[in-house]
Amino acid sequence: MAELETFDNPHPNRDYVITHVAPEFTSVCPKTGQPDFGTITVEYVADKLCVELKSLKFYLQSFRNEGVFYEDLVNRILDDLTAALQPRRMTVRGEFTPRGGMHSTITAEYRSQ
Amino acid sequence: MAELETFDNPHPNRDYVITHVAPEFTSVCPKTGQPDFGTITVEYVADKLCVELKSLKFYLQSFRNEGVFYEDLVNRILDDLTAALQPRRMTVRGEFTPRGGMHSTITAEYRSQ
Amino acid sequence: MAELETFDNPHPNRDYVITHVAPEFTSVCPKTGQPDFGTITVEYVADKLCVELKSLKFYLQSFRNEGVFYEDLVNRILDDLTAALQPRRMTVRGEFTPRGGMHSTITAEYRSQ
Amino acid sequence: MAELETFDNPHPNRDYVITHVAPEFTSVCPKTGQPDFGTITVEYVADKLCVELKSLKFYLQSFRNEGVFYEDLVNRILDDLTAALQPRRMTVRGEFTPRGGMHSTITAEYRSQ
Amino acid sequence: MAELETFDNPHPNRDYVITHVAPEFTSVCPKTGQPDFGTITVEYVADKLCVELKSLKFYLQSFRNEGVFYEDLVNRILDDLTAALQPRRMTVRGEFTPRGGMHSTITAEYRSQ
Amino acid sequence: MAELETFDNPHPNRDYVITHVAPEFTSVCPKTGQPDFGTITVEYVADKLCVELKSLKFYLQSFRNEGVFYEDLVNRILDDLTAALQPRRMTVRGEFTPRGGMHSTITAEYRSQ
Amino acid sequence: MAELETFDNPHPNRDYVITHVAPEFTSVCPKTGQPDFGTITVEYVADKLCVELKSLKFYLQSFRNEGVFYEDLVNRILDDLTAALQPRRMTVRGEFTPRGGMHSTITAEYRSQ
Amino acid sequence: MAELETFDNPHPNRDYVITHVAPEFTSVCPKTGQPDFGTITVEYVADKLCVELKSLKFYLQSFRNEGVFYEDLVNRILDDLTAALQPRRMTVRGEFTPRGGMHSTITAEYRSQ
Amino acid sequence: MAELETFDNPHPNRDYVITHVAPEFTSVCPKTGQPDFGTITVEYVADKLCVELKSLKFYLQSFRNEGVFYEDLVNRILDDLTAALQPRRMTVRGEFTPRGGMHSTITAEYRSQ
Amino acid sequence: MAELETFDNPHPNRDYVITHVAPEFTSVCPKTGQPDFGTITVEYVADKLCVELKSLKFYLQSFRNEGVFYEDLVNRILDDLTAALQPRRMTVRGEFTPRGGMHSTITAEYRSQ
Repeated sequence: MAELETFDNPHPNRDYVITHVAPEFTSVCPKTGQPDFGTITVEYVADKLCVELKSLKFYLQSFRNEGVFYEDLVNRILDDLTAALQPRRMTVRGEFTPRGGMHSTITAEYRSQ
Repeated sequence: MAELETFDNPHPNRDYVITHVAPEFTSVCPKTGQPDFGTITVEYVADKLCVELKSLKFYLQSFRNEGVFYEDLVNRILDDLTAALQPRRMTVRGEFTPRGGMHSTITAEYRSQ
Repeated sequence: MAELETFDNPHPNRDYVITHVAPEFTSVCPKTGQPDFGTITVEYVADKLCVELKSLKFYLQSFRNEGVFYEDLVNRILDDLTAALQPRRMTVRGEFTPRGGMHSTITAEYRSQ
Repeated sequence: MAELETFDNPHPNRDYVITHVAPEFTSVCPKTGQPDFGTITVEYVADKLCVELKSLKFYLQSFRNEGVFYEDLVNRILDDLTAALQPRRMTVRGEFTPRGGMHSTITAEYRSQ
Repeated sequence: MAELETFDNPHPNRDYVITHVAPEFTSVCPKTGQPDFGTITVEYVADKLCVELKSLKFYLQSFRNEGVFYEDLVNRILDDLTAALQPRRMTVRGEFTPRGGMHSTITAEYRSQ
Repeated sequence: MAELETFDNPHPNRDYVITHVAPEFTSVCPKTGQPDFGTITVEYVADKLCVELKSLKFYLQSFRNEGVFYEDLVNRILDDLTAALQPRRMTVRGEFTPRGGMHSTITAEYRSQ
Repeated sequence: MAELETFDNPHPNRDYVITHVAPEFTSVCPKTGQPDFGTITVEYVADKLCVELKSLKFYLQSFRNEGVFYEDLVNRILDDLTAALQPRRMTVRGEFTPRGGMHSTITAEYRSQ
Repeated sequence: MAELETFDNPHPNRDYVITHVAPEFTSVCPKTGQPDFGTITVEYVADKLCVELKSLKFYLQSFRNEGVFYEDLVNRILDDLTAALQPRRMTVRGEFTPRGGMHSTITAEYRSQ
Repeated sequence: MAELETFDNPHPNRDYVITHVAPEFTSVCPKTGQPDFGTITVEYVADKLCVELKSLKFYLQSFRNEGVFYEDLVNRILDDLTAALQPRRMTVRGEFTPRGGMHSTITAEYRSQ
Repeated sequence: MAELETFDNPHPNRDYVITHVAPEFTSVCPKTGQPDFGTITVEYVADKLCVELKSLKFYLQSFRNEGVFYEDLVNRILDDLTAALQPRRMTVRGEFTPRGGMHSTITAEYRSQ
């Protein structure tokens, strides 16, 4: 996995919401070996750290040739980002394109204690 | 009915939302014998089990030549899925195409005790 | 008025939401004699009875040559349907097409005690 | 049928296009007695006469309780309007709402010799 | 200002919502003398009185050549309508078209004590 | 195959365009046995005969459990309809829902000599 | 009427298309005294002169309290603009908001000899 | 920075919502020197003062050649506007166009004590 | 490159149009090594051969980790498909997602002699 | 002005269409000093040379603080690009955001002799 880089939250005294939407996500279905496509949305309230945009792009690109199920993928992205940023709260959503006439969305949330 | 297959929830410690949308649903009107068409949406928080996508597709396809009313259909899908998955909560919605100039939506919910 | 027919709620133990949308509603303005057009939406949680779709269509069609004001119309439909179905709750909304450069929506709700 | 009234084309030396769109058209299916709904569009290049808008509205309203098939209806409107206006050219289109899961459009044209 | 006419609420025992949307509003900027354009939405729960639609149209038209700021305009409409109707609650919203590359919306609410 | 019924063109002296759109088409993929879904559009200029709408619906429904490829299907519908109606010209288009991340459209035309 | 100002076409050797769209047009119906609303689109190929934008705005605003029929209005705007600009070609289109459930569009063209 | 001008809230006794949307915002990325583009939305409940629209436009334009990060920018606009207006509450949102295949939104809120 | 498989055109006596749309195309920018994304549309009139859908999918997937410029890519796909199918005519279009605030479309056509 | 860089057309034997859309264009009104915003679309058939995307971006950015009228701007971009590329044909279109309630589009074309 590409490393997630961070920078200091320029306004740590205020709870404000940062949203990054990546509509060009692609990974590989571990069952069929076929590519999956979708949109990953990351929404969070930073504490001390914000994620640097370019490193988030490279991180998401590192799934390009990885085999991973939808349910697992979204939770892994949430785990990696909360580990790197220690945010006050974070939501990760993956909206995937149709496979076999059905399309799926997975949404996972984290809240600091 | 086709059997619903499951796999182990890869992140059972977290409440996260899984949504599958099947816009290619078709069954038969028990009164007129005419085909009905609609979109079935299943949204749930898994406990120990997730539904395997391909088996969900086959399950929904098994209504193709079945005669069933809208109100009954959505509740039966909810019953079958909650029996198979024992989810923490689940919503099933059926949005049907116009018949006689009117279109209908049925939404049923389940919450574990 | 055409009579509203009902059938037994197939899942009375569960509170679930039934929505019927009728975009082809027409009645007559009692003031000008000109036709009015709109969309009637009926959303309810059934108790013992559900409304039969075809009879709902005939019921709404029976306003075709009736003179009735918007505000009165929506409340009358709500009264007739709650009398026939005794639902747990019901909302009726009428969205009407522009008259004199303005368009109107009326929304009325019923909740059983 | 309500009579179509006309007024003198204020710019008869120029070929210009007049379009009237009536999205609140309703008539009755001669087979089933059920109401039909649709949008009637009239587009023409006037010669000596233009159609007066209010009389066009009343003319279209006079089909409200008439039984007429789609194919016949659009041609009859074209015949009536070309008889009243003697336009340089005219197109009448009827776009009807779904019946039995299908929706239909009929388009007929007239050109003066 | 044109006078607001009212009629008796036909269903005063029920709290129901009446919405009128007027997308053809125009007034004049008091600073530049240039016309302003927008959509006025009035949503209310009537007590004893409903506003008569035609008089609402004439009332809104009476701003056509008046100079008034956005913030003031929406509050004045709310004041006039609550004075005339004594509603249980009312919201007035004005959504204005772009001026200098920016567009504005003002929303004011009234609740009876 | 269900038989296509016809009725006499009520305005045979005029070339006018009739369009029927059937968004609830379904057949079966002959390779995988999986259901296919799509929208069939029939546009034609009648000569002596028009297709009766209900019989067109039943004709299209008779593909429900038939195995047929997209390219073949659209051409067969065109062959059957031109044989039954002998139209002046006809176009049949099939727009199919995504399979394997791709969606397809087939369009075939007929012109009488 | 406000005067139309012009400026020299900066590229008179090339035929290129200039389009101005004014969605905030309003005038008055000469029959009812009620305001009309619409969008005026002017598209032209300049010869020696282009219309100055601000003066076009003031020119269109000068209809604000004028009584004029749709068919006449669009032709008058075309006459005034071709007189002022002597363009190689010009089209004026007026798209008006619904009156009595119908909406209208008028399109007139000019071509230099 | 251009100075923010204010005017007296014409209805200070009522809590009402003022929204200004500026879709033509541009600044410069401090890292790459490349221009950034986005929409800034300011929504507030005024106390004693409202922001004058033209001065808000000039204020936002003063970022045109400034280097500033998304997260910092939205918080700075919120700081400047709350300092100038002392509003009862305010939200500032910046929605930025895609960079490197991702697009971002930042939303910050202020509430008076 | 994955091999393109074909099947016999089931209706070679008729010129009809086949369109396949692949919105999940991805390749790599040869300059930056960054992934590109887009939609490839193939439209053709078959002569003796049609392209098999699954092999077209695999063919397009074989660009996943290839470095290729937009202009070259679309022409290469057209060359490969015309070599394999010898169609009567074919158009290939690539519509790519924004890079650096700009998005591009390339469209190339082939016609048999 | 930033220099336009080119690269060799990889398929000069075929006439194919290249389109670049730049929705983030901004310049300055020479009359008011206020910023203008719009979308520039360049569509061309290359002869020997294609425009390099990054240099096209920098070229368009070099208008950022330039004062230029809409009509002049689009023709100047066309002149610069045809001088640099000597294309077989080219169209440049500028679609600008509303000013004073009106929005404008300018479209200019070039064809080689």
